[in-house]
Amino acid sequence: MSTFDRLSATAIAASVNNGGATALAVMEETLARLAAYDVHQPQVWIARASPEALLAAARAIDARVAAGEHLPLAGVPFAAKDNIDVAGLETTAACPAFAYRPERSAKVIERLEAAGAICIGKTNLDQFATGLVGTRSPYGIPRNAYNRDYVSGGSSSGSAIAVAAGLVAFALGTDTAGSGRVPAAFNHLVGLKPSKGRWSTRGLVPACRTIDCITVFTDALGDAAAVDAVLAVFDAEDAFSRPPADLPLRAKRIGVPRRAQRQFFGDVQAEHLYDQALKVLSRGAELVEIDITPLLEAAQLLYGGPWVAERTAAILPLLESDPEAIHPVVREIVSAGLGMSAVEVWQGHYRLAALARAAEAMWGKVGALAFPTTGTTYRIAELAAAPVALNSNLGLYTNFVNLLDMAAIAVPAGAKSNNTGFGITFIGPAHSDKDLVALAQAYLSLADLSPPPPLDLGDRMDTIKLAVVGAHLEGMPLHWQLTSREASFVGAFTTAPNYRLYAMADSVPPKPALVHSEDGAAIALEVYELGLAAFGSFVAEVPPPLAIGTVTLADGSSVKGFVAEPRALTGAEDITHLGGWRAYIASR
Amino acid sequence: MSTFDRLSATAIAASVNNGGATALAVMEETLARLAAYDVHQPQVWIARASPEALLAAARAIDARVAAGEHLPLAGVPFAAKDNIDVAGLETTAACPAFAYRPERSAKVIERLEAAGAICIGKTNLDQFATGLVGTRSPYGIPRNAYNRDYVSGGSSSGSAIAVAAGLVAFALGTDTAGSGRVPAAFNHLVGLKPSKGRWSTRGLVPACRTIDCITVFTDALGDAAAVDAVLAVFDAEDAFSRPPADLPLRAKRIGVPRRAQRQFFGDVQAEHLYDQALKVLSRGAELVEIDITPLLEAAQLLYGGPWVAERTAAILPLLESDPEAIHPVVREIVSAGLGMSAVEVWQGHYRLAALARAAEAMWGKVGALAFPTTGTTYRIAELAAAPVALNSNLGLYTNFVNLLDMAAIAVPAGAKSNNTGFGITFIGPAHSDKDLVALAQAYLSLADLSPPPPLDLGDRMDTIKLAVVGAHLEGMPLHWQLTSREASFVGAFTTAPNYRLYAMADSVPPKPALVHSEDGAAIALEVYELGLAAFGSFVAEVPPPLAIGTVTLADGSSVKGFVAEPRALTGAEDITHLGGWRAYIASR
Repeated sequence: MSTFDRLSATAIAASVNNGGATALAVMEETLARLAAYDVHQPQVWIARASPEALLAAARAIDARVAAGEHLPLAGVPFAAKDNIDVAGLETTAACPAFAYRPERSAKVIERLEAAGAICIGKTNLDQFATGLVGTRSPYGIPRNAYNRDYVSGGSSSGSAIAVAAGLVAFALGTDTAGSGRVPAAFNHLVGLKPSKGRWSTRGLVPACRTIDCITVFTDALGDAAAVDAVLAVFDAEDAFSRPPADLPLRAKRIGVPRRAQRQFFGDVQAEHLYDQALKVLSRGAELVEIDITPLLEAAQLLYGGPWVAERTAAILPLLESDPEAIHPVVREIVSAGLGMSAVEVWQGHYRLAALARAAEAMWGKVGALAFPTTGTTYRIAELAAAPVALNSNLGLYTNFVNLLDMAAIAVPAGAKSNNTGFGITFIGPAHSDKDLVALAQAYLSLADLSPPPPLDLGDRMDTIKLAVVGAHLEGMPLHWQLTSREASFVGAFTTAPNYRLYAMADSVPPKPALVHSEDGAAIALEVYELGLAAFGSFVAEVPPPLAIGTVTLADGSSVKGFVAEPRALTGAEDITHLGGWRAYIASR
Repeated sequence: MSTFDRLSATAIAASVNNGGATALAVMEETLARLAAYDVHQPQVWIARASPEALLAAARAIDARVAAGEHLPLAGVPFAAKDNIDVAGLETTAACPAFAYRPERSAKVIERLEAAGAICIGKTNLDQFATGLVGTRSPYGIPRNAYNRDYVSGGSSSGSAIAVAAGLVAFALGTDTAGSGRVPAAFNHLVGLKPSKGRWSTRGLVPACRTIDCITVFTDALGDAAAVDAVLAVFDAEDAFSRPPADLPLRAKRIGVPRRAQRQFFGDVQAEHLYDQALKVLSRGAELVEIDITPLLEAAQLLYGGPWVAERTAAILPLLESDPEAIHPVVREIVSAGLGMSAVEVWQGHYRLAALARAAEAMWGKVGALAFPTTGTTYRIAELAAAPVALNSNLGLYTNFVNLLDMAAIAVPAGAKSNNTGFGITFIGPAHSDKDLVALAQAYLSLADLSPPPPLDLGDRMDTIKLAVVGAHLEGMPLHWQLTSREASFVGAFTTAPNYRLYAMADSVPPKPALVHSEDGAAIALEVYELGLAAFGSFVAEVPPPLAIGTVTLADGSSVKGFVAEPRALTGAEDITHLGGWRAYIASR
């Protein structure tokens, strides 16, 4: 087994129970994997238990097994999203100002530990579980495990990566709008979002408390089922717990969106992979195109209706006392609930009830749905420009599920050429959890997918700020060299007031040379941010007599930027008095 | 059968089906009863179908029966509370400004008519079903059928009286806070409040839409069961409909409030009747004292929490466009929802969920509850002084039921010495409807109650407006002669500008004489409203030279009021220039 091969909870437990391995050995291996992946993405974690504590926990499991106990998750390392209480570790919900130290573990943690599993630590998330992207955290941005230019998916970002990278055998996420499914799709995982109330939410920081679900990410369906077997139990301490039930799914007919209603946001690979998945499904069931309008309308209530105010209610004290402590995108979303009236909430309830009726009628026609988990995915750099709108696109096929009291299981459905995952989600009415797993298993057996592509373990991803002063300015002939490298615009600034700018002779396209001089002026420039590799390839293409050096900005800070060799001034025209290249071009 | 003997729906239907009577004959009898009771309480009704239409409907039933149809409610006359749509009649919800003419009947009306029942008309109610008293209607105050000094109970006031007085065999009410149970108790009736969603609410003006139930008042339990058999059906057009289910009730152990938690508001007769009922119950079941704190806390959410805003949502356009058109007490209650925030609603949901958990735990200890339906009752005159507080007292044992998703059936449990009814209510978890009826039947069989006392058919209750100008003004020495007669203040006005006012000589206490005169002025007065009997006794006490005659007000209208014999002017001082008696007293 190589370092980051994925783990199997059931295989580990079987091995520990039958003496094939010790929990201690499993934990030692786990600690090695954690250390190895920390080099690549330490931001997967917000907190981890100490190695000593983990080794002690493993020894305790070995002792229990030695004493004759059979533990369904004996010695299985797992992770918990950091909005789930684990005694001994802080709960932050990715907001340092919100952090508290819980006295008790959440019910799900208690049950998993009783079953022999060992919690490694708390994973990063979109703050307060508000997001489907994974970029909304002050603890860093966990990146897609298979292509770190891309979002990991959220809000359960760290949990998905921890499983994808083989750091733990399973990880708990949570799901209100799709947070337990979207990261599964992007990271080639199984993501089980049980029926509302099937797994206790006692000890969970609420997002929308009436519809929040705790979820699990695994490599294989059997592991998700094994976790469900431990967690599906009524909890009298959770006001939203429901006695688990297992209703049969009539999955001979499977609903898919009408072709005209399918949205892939221009992602032709995703569209193709969905078509392939439907071909596979059609070998075992009749596919029925359904009108998804009521589902999409229900979805609107989640972020465009009164359910936003549940998020507001969840963090009201912090929102009122220290709003600046909240991630700006999250703050903008959650603050919308402050101005909402009680009457609007009830009107939303009535609307949802009507839409639920329409959705119920659907179950008369089909036994389950098989939808794309998401229509597309995005680069992290793209998200920065439109954090809310692109996030919404990712929720198209997930947002309605909890509001309409459905269960869902997201499974892989192929890789895109950028190595990120595409997934489909099977959706059924409440209490169809077990049959949904069986349906998903039947699909995976037929689909016979390739294993996930290799993890993205290239050079440590980082970014560099670059100042441009001439032909790379926005709208200028060489600007494409930045956009093609997904450079993000940081801002327009000026240099410190001791530079001179020259228009070089015979340069094609026309280009300036920026030269430091005590007798100078402040020169206009633009700053961009690029990934390290992109920056490297950019520098490689800079022609002489230009070079990439260091430029001091007006505020005294330094960034990388275009400088010039002395020869650049030969025959050059001093244009310092114009204050910048854009003015020079305009003056010609 | 005498005029107002109560009717039996099952007996009528059996008779019409087997040819023992025609629906036409039943309807002719019904019309006679309606006319006879109109003399006493026309305010039971807001609208009635025309006799021609009713007779035609009866003939149509006879034709259907003659054609071989067996109709479970063949020819049975019934009434509908005027917040339930009946095609052909206006729906007012007791608010003229809200009135509309529905194109379709409510689902319950459609089903009852299909079963052979005939809707006589629409009954009066507390406006927008907001109240448990029956006094909050511009269509007059329906009074307790057994003692017209007392409230009928509300909000389904007219429906209860129509059944109590034998005008119809059953009547539909509605119930959000207890409106289908409280009037049953006060009028010696059965009141069935089914499980939420068991009977469709399509075509009902909402109060709190998520918890509203349509209910039925009957003389006997069998009739309530017969109506349930017709109405318990899933309605896809009602977003809050639920498929009817009949779950068994384990009624060997019956919960009653701890003695210290029982509140009768000083009504020792009610307390005694409840004790008697418990004695009867203890012959068939074990009585278990339970802590009703969580029930009472849940009840607080109905009028002290976010569910108020459901009422606001229900009438928002009217509340915003024409608030004066709403009954002042109702307006005060419903307006409270305007200032409530979305966050408060969610917090209320969380609170209710926690309390529901506590209530559920109760069902592990007892199979059903047997509570007083109300702790006491009130005179109509008492209500005027504290309309909200006394109304709240009446809801003590009813307000929590719908919020906590319980079914309930109110049954008689004896008469008080004032002839009004005392009742108990059996309460069970959702879907226990059928077994609740059986439990109530077992109680009634054991209790062997006396039949209801005679209806209150004394002199026609009416009121008279009386103008006072002197010692009976508010704050003056004889004002008590009005308050002791429960006179209600109508307003302060002036006479037409052709009266003179004199201070009589030697009158003790000082009194004026009001004298009509072409050379006069407008004189200040106060108008009060008294019941006929109270008015009569008041007139009887007026000493000469004063008398009760007719006084013309500034707007040209006339009311009864103090006038004077000519002799009153002997030695009297003309004080017309002061404009009224109050100014004269102040000037002395």
